[in-house]
Amino acid sequence: MIPTVDETHDPALRSWVRSANDGRTDFPIQNLPFGVFRHEGSGERARVGIAIGAMILDVSTAMKAGYFTGDAAAGARACAAQCLNDLMELGRPAWRALRAAASALLRDGSSAERDAERILVPMADADLLLPARVGDYTDFYASIHHATNVGSMFRPDNPLLPNYKWVPIGYHGRSSSLVPSGSEVRRPLGQRKAPDAPTPVYGPSRSLDYECEVGAFVGTGSSLGEPLGMSAAAEQLFGLCLVNDWSARDIQSWEYQPLGPFLAKNFATTVSPWVVTMEALAPFRIPAAPRAAGDPAPLPHLTDDDDARRGGVDLALEVWLRTRGMRERGEGPVRLSRARFSDMYWTLAQMVAHHASNGCNLRAGDLIASGTVSGPERDARGCMLELTWRGTEPVRLPDGETRSFLEDGDELILRGECARDGAARIGFGECRGRILPAPAN
Amino acid sequence: MIPTVDETHDPALRSWVRSANDGRTDFPIQNLPFGVFRHEGSGERARVGIAIGAMILDVSTAMKAGYFTGDAAAGARACAAQCLNDLMELGRPAWRALRAAASALLRDGSSAERDAERILVPMADADLLLPARVGDYTDFYASIHHATNVGSMFRPDNPLLPNYKWVPIGYHGRSSSLVPSGSEVRRPLGQRKAPDAPTPVYGPSRSLDYECEVGAFVGTGSSLGEPLGMSAAAEQLFGLCLVNDWSARDIQSWEYQPLGPFLAKNFATTVSPWVVTMEALAPFRIPAAPRAAGDPAPLPHLTDDDDARRGGVDLALEVWLRTRGMRERGEGPVRLSRARFSDMYWTLAQMVAHHASNGCNLRAGDLIASGTVSGPERDARGCMLELTWRGTEPVRLPDGETRSFLEDGDELILRGECARDGAARIGFGECRGRILPAPAN
Repeated sequence: MIPTVDETHDPALRSWVRSANDGRTDFPIQNLPFGVFRHEGSGERARVGIAIGAMILDVSTAMKAGYFTGDAAAGARACAAQCLNDLMELGRPAWRALRAAASALLRDGSSAERDAERILVPMADADLLLPARVGDYTDFYASIHHATNVGSMFRPDNPLLPNYKWVPIGYHGRSSSLVPSGSEVRRPLGQRKAPDAPTPVYGPSRSLDYECEVGAFVGTGSSLGEPLGMSAAAEQLFGLCLVNDWSARDIQSWEYQPLGPFLAKNFATTVSPWVVTMEALAPFRIPAAPRAAGDPAPLPHLTDDDDARRGGVDLALEVWLRTRGMRERGEGPVRLSRARFSDMYWTLAQMVAHHASNGCNLRAGDLIASGTVSGPERDARGCMLELTWRGTEPVRLPDGETRSFLEDGDELILRGECARDGAARIGFGECRGRILPAPAN
Repeated sequence: MIPTVDETHDPALRSWVRSANDGRTDFPIQNLPFGVFRHEGSGERARVGIAIGAMILDVSTAMKAGYFTGDAAAGARACAAQCLNDLMELGRPAWRALRAAASALLRDGSSAERDAERILVPMADADLLLPARVGDYTDFYASIHHATNVGSMFRPDNPLLPNYKWVPIGYHGRSSSLVPSGSEVRRPLGQRKAPDAPTPVYGPSRSLDYECEVGAFVGTGSSLGEPLGMSAAAEQLFGLCLVNDWSARDIQSWEYQPLGPFLAKNFATTVSPWVVTMEALAPFRIPAAPRAAGDPAPLPHLTDDDDARRGGVDLALEVWLRTRGMRERGEGPVRLSRARFSDMYWTLAQMVAHHASNGCNLRAGDLIASGTVSGPERDARGCMLELTWRGTEPVRLPDGETRSFLEDGDELILRGECARDGAARIGFGECRGRILPAPAN
């Protein structure tokens, strides 16, 4: 089941937390994303909070103050953990009850305002950690625009493989090197081989790239040997975040056959800290992207009426770059691209249903990323490989610098927002990382 | 550093546990592998034990009885955990001290014999669980015989890709579906497409296969952004087990391009319960397999004198099949193949050094599998795909039945043993799994 709109989405709602009402924040009272924070210098354990404007609602402290009772108590109790997994395991009724209670607590007129200093933590004073303990991280390849562009570069004769329109292509990524937004990322070393070179060399990657992706956290999980239907697959989704799947293109092109990407990807993957729940996204569900004339219909186990009607998410994604020069001159980042998540060839539920279709089990906290989100337009390409067409058409920045791939000191920022008439705009916060030089070799 | 032979390997050592001295057991006192067991029906928590003959030394209980003191205490304390990760994190000095103390405790003449009933559990009365909490599972492809055979079938024009002799090819597997030996394995559903069919279909795999592999557990782990040299890579290895990487070949051939195997593999991977430590394997370290004339030398970061001299493991692997018919007639399994782990193109240290060569971090408990272990001989092919040449040359069993791939009810058993003149033979126990019919679809 895809969650539906309820009174927590009412665009007229306002919070007693002033910064939630400014019309610019990613975190108005209609959003209420979950994350894991540690209050800087407090020496306290990390725990689950809810973003509201520029503040974090400390759910555990609010619970102790008596604010989460009845149906909301189980979810609030799970927020004492150092990751979202306990909450995820409780399932959608608990998630909904906690959201409803948090919405009531933070609403204008709630008596909770008198406890503001106790139950709120300024986001600026908190470290934001990985939201979940990720057992398995899977990366899909669900943008046909990305797959076609990349395929054209790596396999000019055969850009889109015959399985693409039947199989939501995905592969297993590395969970150990998932890092929270703000972590610095060291340029990887690796083997690369120029097409005309007789032998490969080992050294710092020369074509370090980002990939702008959407991540979905699995909620309750499923059992080994038990495939999920499409409706049960949608039910598995807890919420979404932004993912930067850093990629070393020179390592990738040399290593990836026949078993797929490995060291080209597993040196770091950056995850945004706030998980925007499927409940918060209810006003932004739209039809799945229509397939082009002549494309096959998905097989029955990947087909569902509700998913066709509301399986898409009207989410705009932006990629911003801030070079060392911009930082030194005190300039803000520049936008490289903007794409729509609703342009993906496969929906989130189709990815989950496919993942479990062989009997593979999912666990609460698993992270399923969409693959690079690219659109049909030139400025909707979600990685530098595509934007610069493998470095052959460098991007020119406003200060005259150019980029074929990322350079040391570059900072890359992903942003996401949902905005539609009749709904309050919500955002995803930032997924940010800066490149450090490679280690000595 | 590759561990060296010491007095715990003395072939003259005998244990007061009689079943350890019969010359046939996989677990003489020279082995002492670690595993995680739960005493059936006792209601007690799972904990770490050491196999000795037909018994398990309950390390925690022996510690309470005063048998692990001094340098061995830290390791013995870590054996109260429900997985080996705590012990793994302690590092080689702790592993060595615990081994030495266990060897002394179990030796003929030790006063511990009087506490036998308290500190030993019959293996027959115990459930053996997954030995570690595996954060990430990586599967390599390190047998050039396997890679060449499989490549010939999937890419007849191009069997061994140009990167093979430079890059220890590997990919990320699924950790959620790792199961301990003895678990039943449900035949997966999935998409397959015959070359001449216009469209794929979704249904039970028709070419279910096993792969006989060796698994290596990572010990202490490494830091993100910090590659490991070859010696440090060898130091990371805690011990080895057997791994059956069940594979659905029809799903694999349709899905695997361009990102590698996914649903063809992630429905189940069976792991043997006893981890034979690198210390126990010291007498069986032999030179790495020589490269054929004309093959390139590995790049410097994958080259090491000690590894060239002692990077191989003289370990024989066998695959046995017991069909439903054999079981119903009370017959034992029949051997399908026998291969040598020392025939692998890449050593374990090379796989680990490659894995970390881009800065990817390893964690205690990570599982690194070797890929199918096949030798050059026809009866040394470690999967059915190779044995039957993709089903075209079915295996004939003694009772007249044939197999192109596995059928429901088939039980597959992997065994491993190290045997050399001048050393006590040690074994790996079994890695066993039986195929259940596919779920309804």
